[in-house]
Amino acid sequence: MNTEPTLPFLRACLRLPVSQTPMWIMRQAGRYLPEYRATRAQAGSFLQLCRNPELATEVTMQPLRRYGLDAAILFSDILVVAEAMGIKLSFNEGEGPQLEPRINSHNDVLALHPAEPEDELGYVLATVRTIRKELDGRIPLIGFAGSPWTVATYMVEGGSSKTFSRIKGMMFDAPLVLQELLDRLADVTAAYLNAQIRHGAQAVQIFDTWGGVLSPRDFRAFSLRAMIRIMEQLDKTTPQGEQVPVILFAKGCGPLLEEVAATGCQVVGLDWTTDLARARERVAGRVALQGNMDPAILYASEARIRQEVEEVLTAYGPHAGHIFNLGHGIAQDVDPARVSILVDAVRQVSRRILSQ
Amino acid sequence: MNTEPTLPFLRACLRLPVSQTPMWIMRQAGRYLPEYRATRAQAGSFLQLCRNPELATEVTMQPLRRYGLDAAILFSDILVVAEAMGIKLSFNEGEGPQLEPRINSHNDVLALHPAEPEDELGYVLATVRTIRKELDGRIPLIGFAGSPWTVATYMVEGGSSKTFSRIKGMMFDAPLVLQELLDRLADVTAAYLNAQIRHGAQAVQIFDTWGGVLSPRDFRAFSLRAMIRIMEQLDKTTPQGEQVPVILFAKGCGPLLEEVAATGCQVVGLDWTTDLARARERVAGRVALQGNMDPAILYASEARIRQEVEEVLTAYGPHAGHIFNLGHGIAQDVDPARVSILVDAVRQVSRRILSQ
Repeated sequence: MNTEPTLPFLRACLRLPVSQTPMWIMRQAGRYLPEYRATRAQAGSFLQLCRNPELATEVTMQPLRRYGLDAAILFSDILVVAEAMGIKLSFNEGEGPQLEPRINSHNDVLALHPAEPEDELGYVLATVRTIRKELDGRIPLIGFAGSPWTVATYMVEGGSSKTFSRIKGMMFDAPLVLQELLDRLADVTAAYLNAQIRHGAQAVQIFDTWGGVLSPRDFRAFSLRAMIRIMEQLDKTTPQGEQVPVILFAKGCGPLLEEVAATGCQVVGLDWTTDLARARERVAGRVALQGNMDPAILYASEARIRQEVEEVLTAYGPHAGHIFNLGHGIAQDVDPARVSILVDAVRQVSRRILSQ
Repeated sequence: MNTEPTLPFLRACLRLPVSQTPMWIMRQAGRYLPEYRATRAQAGSFLQLCRNPELATEVTMQPLRRYGLDAAILFSDILVVAEAMGIKLSFNEGEGPQLEPRINSHNDVLALHPAEPEDELGYVLATVRTIRKELDGRIPLIGFAGSPWTVATYMVEGGSSKTFSRIKGMMFDAPLVLQELLDRLADVTAAYLNAQIRHGAQAVQIFDTWGGVLSPRDFRAFSLRAMIRIMEQLDKTTPQGEQVPVILFAKGCGPLLEEVAATGCQVVGLDWTTDLARARERVAGRVALQGNMDPAILYASEARIRQEVEEVLTAYGPHAGHIFNLGHGIAQDVDPARVSILVDAVRQVSRRILSQ
């Protein structure tokens, strides 16, 4: 069985016609929402929130209740995969993630735990099930994981980085060690995404937040290659036989759009530094596109937000295969009222454009 | 009089043949050098070092003595222009620059001091003269300034930023106020660069460090437009009638290379996310190219550094019009010995390639 989906987000992923452009917002369940901050305070910490299926479901639902978006995204963190492989993960307030021990050598890679998602990440899968129950088929659920390259940057650097000196040192001097790390991450990530799909995810997004710090050559050899390794292992359908679209979001990689689109994904996520009209021509109907409004527009006035929505939707035009989103996660200092304006504008303008 | 220059760096800027590829390194006078750290300690602070022509000349000369590079670059900071316009500038250890008051409104822009470079920036011009005396015609001196957009980000944000929320809010809601600020910055910057040329700069580079955070549309309308306004006002020659090449370095703007190249500059600086061989084809001999090795290669082994130099120089090929550089400023934790390897490799490999 492989019938056409009815939910607009899933239809747009497969480039099927819709009457208004479906939208969701990267990091839509986040600190800009007062109700999120309250639930997080109740959980104790960010990681405790991730590990609590009831509360993680609650924050997943909050932006849907407030704005009526077209997709829910699993509330979790890309680094839980590193944790499942035996790395100690902590988030110290205002400092970003810390990972111990750092991966330095081939022996460190060999010592990584071959994580079984059903075991070590069972709490995420429980969250997936709880969210699906709560959504009750009205709104689709997107599962996600970080790209191997992006997760590896944190594992090798021991946290966030500006220069990526350690992982690039490894890439340049011990490329086979890095490839081994990326292969292991790809295999665990594929198993993890497949588990999310088994437990209820209806689409999955791979976040390659840091692919853009690589030269085109190194992006291909390390980040893109590992994402293709995931793609090759992913289940194509849910247990019920529905097609599961894969969204690849590689920030800063607009110049390599054609290559990202050729990985076998159904949707490419774009940041705002890529021209959307040109991008649509470049992929020529081979994939759907997701994006790509500059998140900073949400600091602007209502009129300016509406104007920008008009420009983004006009750039894509009256074609199938567009999912509206920001070009990056929403910032924590955005006024939630601006998001209401954004959602209203996307509804109104896209209905007009798509009925032309 | 407008005869061909003899110094290799200036020749390469004008796409004249050379026997080895000239090179310099962005931020070559910097904290990775122990002799720099000693002179800076002697000066007291970074800004005191910038304001002291003798010591600023000393740090300018240090990397030339150590490595025998093909160009000196004025030691200063892009934010001295904001300071000359009446903004209080300070650098607190480990925190980046702080600028007060922040520019919020049209009135704030109107209140900016119409700086006369010969007055407020006389200390920089004294440094230019002192460096030229010290260089004695053996090595050319590059003057520089920040792009109006890049300097404006600091003036509107009050310092560094991750989200650029204030300046983008201004850009979206008060574009004419931002344009007025950029126009004023462009006019002062053009006068400042012309003063550097009068006092001895033989080439000038405009650093657009933050152009890459803009969408293509906004890059054109704000950053590129202001750089073109500078280009229109720049002196084409030194007081002695020698052509002064202009280098435009817009980080993250590789996709818009053709438009950057069409501004009237002689050289476009590239970061490492742009394919150099393709870039040369794209500009088709209209400009020279500067760059573009990933600065992180300097964390790698000698063999890997040499291999990468081979790849970069081979990518450009045996054509005129290449200046070797990193794709971004050198990091402060780089081992100075690696730079010696880099310089040696560029000499050896480029002589071989250019003699083919």
